[in-house]
Amino acid sequence: MHNIPVGVLGASGYAGRQLCDLIVRHPRLSLAFATANEQSGQRAIFGGQEVVFTPTSDAPLAEAELVFCALPHGASASWVAKAADAGARVVDLSQDLRPGTATERVPYGLPELLRSTIAGARVVANPGCYPTAMLLAIAPLINAGKVPPGATVSVSAASGVTGAGHSPKPELLYAEIAENFRAYAVGNEHRHLAEVRAVVSSLGGNLDVLFTPHLLPVARGILATITVPITESLGDPQELWRSHYAGEQFVRVVGSPPALRDVVHTNSALIHVSAASAVRQPTLIVLCAIDNLMKGAAGQAVQNANLMLGLDEAMGLAA
Amino acid sequence: MHNIPVGVLGASGYAGRQLCDLIVRHPRLSLAFATANEQSGQRAIFGGQEVVFTPTSDAPLAEAELVFCALPHGASASWVAKAADAGARVVDLSQDLRPGTATERVPYGLPELLRSTIAGARVVANPGCYPTAMLLAIAPLINAGKVPPGATVSVSAASGVTGAGHSPKPELLYAEIAENFRAYAVGNEHRHLAEVRAVVSSLGGNLDVLFTPHLLPVARGILATITVPITESLGDPQELWRSHYAGEQFVRVVGSPPALRDVVHTNSALIHVSAASAVRQPTLIVLCAIDNLMKGAAGQAVQNANLMLGLDEAMGLAA
Amino acid sequence: MHNIPVGVLGASGYAGRQLCDLIVRHPRLSLAFATANEQSGQRAIFGGQEVVFTPTSDAPLAEAELVFCALPHGASASWVAKAADAGARVVDLSQDLRPGTATERVPYGLPELLRSTIAGARVVANPGCYPTAMLLAIAPLINAGKVPPGATVSVSAASGVTGAGHSPKPELLYAEIAENFRAYAVGNEHRHLAEVRAVVSSLGGNLDVLFTPHLLPVARGILATITVPITESLGDPQELWRSHYAGEQFVRVVGSPPALRDVVHTNSALIHVSAASAVRQPTLIVLCAIDNLMKGAAGQAVQNANLMLGLDEAMGLAA
Amino acid sequence: MHNIPVGVLGASGYAGRQLCDLIVRHPRLSLAFATANEQSGQRAIFGGQEVVFTPTSDAPLAEAELVFCALPHGASASWVAKAADAGARVVDLSQDLRPGTATERVPYGLPELLRSTIAGARVVANPGCYPTAMLLAIAPLINAGKVPPGATVSVSAASGVTGAGHSPKPELLYAEIAENFRAYAVGNEHRHLAEVRAVVSSLGGNLDVLFTPHLLPVARGILATITVPITESLGDPQELWRSHYAGEQFVRVVGSPPALRDVVHTNSALIHVSAASAVRQPTLIVLCAIDNLMKGAAGQAVQNANLMLGLDEAMGLAA
Repeated sequence: MHNIPVGVLGASGYAGRQLCDLIVRHPRLSLAFATANEQSGQRAIFGGQEVVFTPTSDAPLAEAELVFCALPHGASASWVAKAADAGARVVDLSQDLRPGTATERVPYGLPELLRSTIAGARVVANPGCYPTAMLLAIAPLINAGKVPPGATVSVSAASGVTGAGHSPKPELLYAEIAENFRAYAVGNEHRHLAEVRAVVSSLGGNLDVLFTPHLLPVARGILATITVPITESLGDPQELWRSHYAGEQFVRVVGSPPALRDVVHTNSALIHVSAASAVRQPTLIVLCAIDNLMKGAAGQAVQNANLMLGLDEAMGLAA
Repeated sequence: MHNIPVGVLGASGYAGRQLCDLIVRHPRLSLAFATANEQSGQRAIFGGQEVVFTPTSDAPLAEAELVFCALPHGASASWVAKAADAGARVVDLSQDLRPGTATERVPYGLPELLRSTIAGARVVANPGCYPTAMLLAIAPLINAGKVPPGATVSVSAASGVTGAGHSPKPELLYAEIAENFRAYAVGNEHRHLAEVRAVVSSLGGNLDVLFTPHLLPVARGILATITVPITESLGDPQELWRSHYAGEQFVRVVGSPPALRDVVHTNSALIHVSAASAVRQPTLIVLCAIDNLMKGAAGQAVQNANLMLGLDEAMGLAA
Repeated sequence: MHNIPVGVLGASGYAGRQLCDLIVRHPRLSLAFATANEQSGQRAIFGGQEVVFTPTSDAPLAEAELVFCALPHGASASWVAKAADAGARVVDLSQDLRPGTATERVPYGLPELLRSTIAGARVVANPGCYPTAMLLAIAPLINAGKVPPGATVSVSAASGVTGAGHSPKPELLYAEIAENFRAYAVGNEHRHLAEVRAVVSSLGGNLDVLFTPHLLPVARGILATITVPITESLGDPQELWRSHYAGEQFVRVVGSPPALRDVVHTNSALIHVSAASAVRQPTLIVLCAIDNLMKGAAGQAVQNANLMLGLDEAMGLAA
Repeated sequence: MHNIPVGVLGASGYAGRQLCDLIVRHPRLSLAFATANEQSGQRAIFGGQEVVFTPTSDAPLAEAELVFCALPHGASASWVAKAADAGARVVDLSQDLRPGTATERVPYGLPELLRSTIAGARVVANPGCYPTAMLLAIAPLINAGKVPPGATVSVSAASGVTGAGHSPKPELLYAEIAENFRAYAVGNEHRHLAEVRAVVSSLGGNLDVLFTPHLLPVARGILATITVPITESLGDPQELWRSHYAGEQFVRVVGSPPALRDVVHTNSALIHVSAASAVRQPTLIVLCAIDNLMKGAAGQAVQNANLMLGLDEAMGLAA
């Protein structure tokens, strides 16, 4: 059984490198090409195999059955079109084709919520890291109609620094991040919000999202801490999530608050739900932890690719 | 001008060591004794001066004009009484005498909110670290009557590990904390909440507090990220805080989100306020950063001691 | 093809947990039991599989074909004997049976140097983490007779904190290790030296070892930086190592200085050799990086177990 | 008593920022200007005082009695000349005027070894961070003539990342440094070696230096671990250092191995000496810890400035 050739456009960033690593270790995929812009010509080792980044402009798109596009936001859409024209299926990790940004609609690659539209797709928009954590956390509540109309869902989330990219910036130097912690994009100014709102709306939710991201002194991982008012107290607050995600391999409802350590280097999302005591408005606290480079980017992209290529959805992915 | 002798009960923990360091470097205080229980007999260096921890049971209480009591919660109240009986003023860093815990009322040592009651006090209950950050952040809003009655203030806060103490526990080992992040005491189960509620009530506030603390992979610092619904939009959302804290040396309202790095090793609290956009309910996001061992413990204790001893409130404390 | 049942005595420490994780993911091994002393009754998740630590005293030794003994130094030898008496092969990770400590000699489990004695062994002494790095680094030089008789090999090595164990000690708390670095056991006082000297001697080396270990603010990894005088300049200083380790899957000679990041979570040892310039005495600098919990403990133990059980030596181990 | 105006050329790097912070808090110095190249126009807060970096080309050199030059290597010498021409004394933190690099000789600013030449100087070359640690560690041995002629002193040293500068490079990003450790410039290729050799020679030493630097996952601090053969065993190996540095405020000989934590944010160098046991060649292990930005750069620069300006040598510097 021969392997399926896949390519990576924009392989030198953190998501691109994670993609290469997953592909090289994948039982059925092989890496046809890995491109970079400024870092083209550089070498990297993935799973003991040396890979040389070739220039993106020279990408042999026709050699791949599927292309992962991990180019910067804004630069991605045109390459998605080129790859599709060359006959490849495409998983686009940029923001360019996601709901809230794109006018043209392609399936949104969050399999646990929208699996049926992904399998047959030629092009899939891979979700952002924060939206993945938020949407997995609140979708069961929206689906159950348990959020009062117009209510504000308050999300305080924290991400490791690989979420800010591999391009060197002074504020991402070790000596600036270590032993530090801060919020950013405060006041609902984060580019991921339009994506979350559009998906919430498509799921039938009528609620506002207030989102405050923070930058953690860790390399990987996102923890979203979500407080959401509910229409009435639920008996076992975790039950709704357990039944909604029954049978899912990568979403687990857990009995104690998840730590980043439980999810890094895996494609899993861990969710914990509890009811707030001693507040008059019935309120749930929903915690969701993922690895921003795995379920938040490259892992989910491979999960989508598996679906698009007719492979086992979990192939090559640790839970 | 001779120095004023002060003592530290429970000097071997993180707050106790920070107290010793501040006292040794203080222009007008001198360290009369520093006690420990299990670590008595150990030596430590503060400001180049060697200090030997003596057994708490042998503390020469009568030699001190003021005693800082940094013993564990539950073990502190009886020592506060002994020190007071011996004629010393006392700043108690434990929870034992704080509002929400104690039946007997002693002044609550948060000078920026309750300065007048501290100066003449014989015994002061030094606030907890999380309550200090939360209360400084929301007091101006309560004072201005801008929170709808019965509203829920949602606090997501993160603390460095020195807040969890110096006693060795497996979950506080370096290899468990580094590159990790998690929530704890989820669902409003934190012991500090009673303190916050009692103070909010004494300030005239009618609101609920929902509090989710997190453990950061940093040694020091607390950042509280607070979302609070308000009755109507404010013009310049920072103005209320600027006027409330005008003239304060240790509380500063800043124009960009504060980082832990801006406050560690200082007694300052930095506050940033912004209005949430794109939510129907007018809502503010208030950020407050402090050093949990300084403004959250030992620094504030020295600030209270300065007030009680008639010294300049800021003496020996970096802003 | 049924799996081979193996057990872990002392599974709750860092090496024991790594062993459980490797066994659960191993294609041919299955975990028959995992014991602990103080932490018996606790649960842990390895590869998605929940494991409960049972009391060591209740270990069903007869159910295992091979037992990994990861008990503390001093407590291990008697359990090795019990497991052997019960008919199991044993890989002992403690110091108890290693050269330099034990009077009785069992094969020393460093496959790249002593493979032939391991395959048929009933009991193997798994090397220490520092000795593994040091011995892999200098064995080719000893073998080639290139070190002047009586010369001093100077080893400055640094280890992550998991090397210091999982038992909570104040000096291993996050707040004590982060942003810190120090030497320990200075002056050749480390317990691993006897092991290194005995093995060097058995390899025919006539040299002294001066060893200064350091504690790094990282969870995993050892880097040994070794300066060794040589009898005469070598042409290509790396050639000796390349030929000595030709064909080895877990020892690689690399062209640039290895980083801990290159080896953590793998069973590989990376070695870099260069000649010192501008010193009159011809001298080599040999660098060797390993993961202290993998090639320095559990990974090497599984490598030895694979050999003892007639499996592929690299089975279940990432290179 | 008016303050002495001093300026900083190249204030936006880590050493420059540390200089600004020390000057702003110094009892007798005031900051006349702080310049930057790419970061001119940026604002920074030092000791609660806002400083705006002005373009280096506009530096009002004539307004300063003393100028600290913290410009990049190669760009510094010409600005030192301009500042001297404008009448200012100059402390140059670059490599440009140091022994081993410069042909012209200016006093080398290591007060504990060469104090007498510094006080009257117009221009002083501030030592490098690694040379400071190495030279303070071995000078007493050289002075005592206890190193065999032609012997090799082996230095394994590790530095925090601020030593690599503030310019953003991919390899200095948090996610590349955290949980990592590696050697660099292996084989005696570090630019600081010429400086060390020239100073050793000027002190009368006849020895070779083998130097292997490493990059630590910490922001600040250098630890040098030095093995040096000696002509004969010394009784109390620390005695030589104690007598050599008697009376020094910033060099302390300590009884246990120094940790970075003991020196960061101070101008102190801590030295520990022990004799190696079980090696035939009598050998000492000398450890020296400093803060690379303090005693290794800005702190020592202020110490030199104090001497040049006739102030107390320790003014404004924590020990």
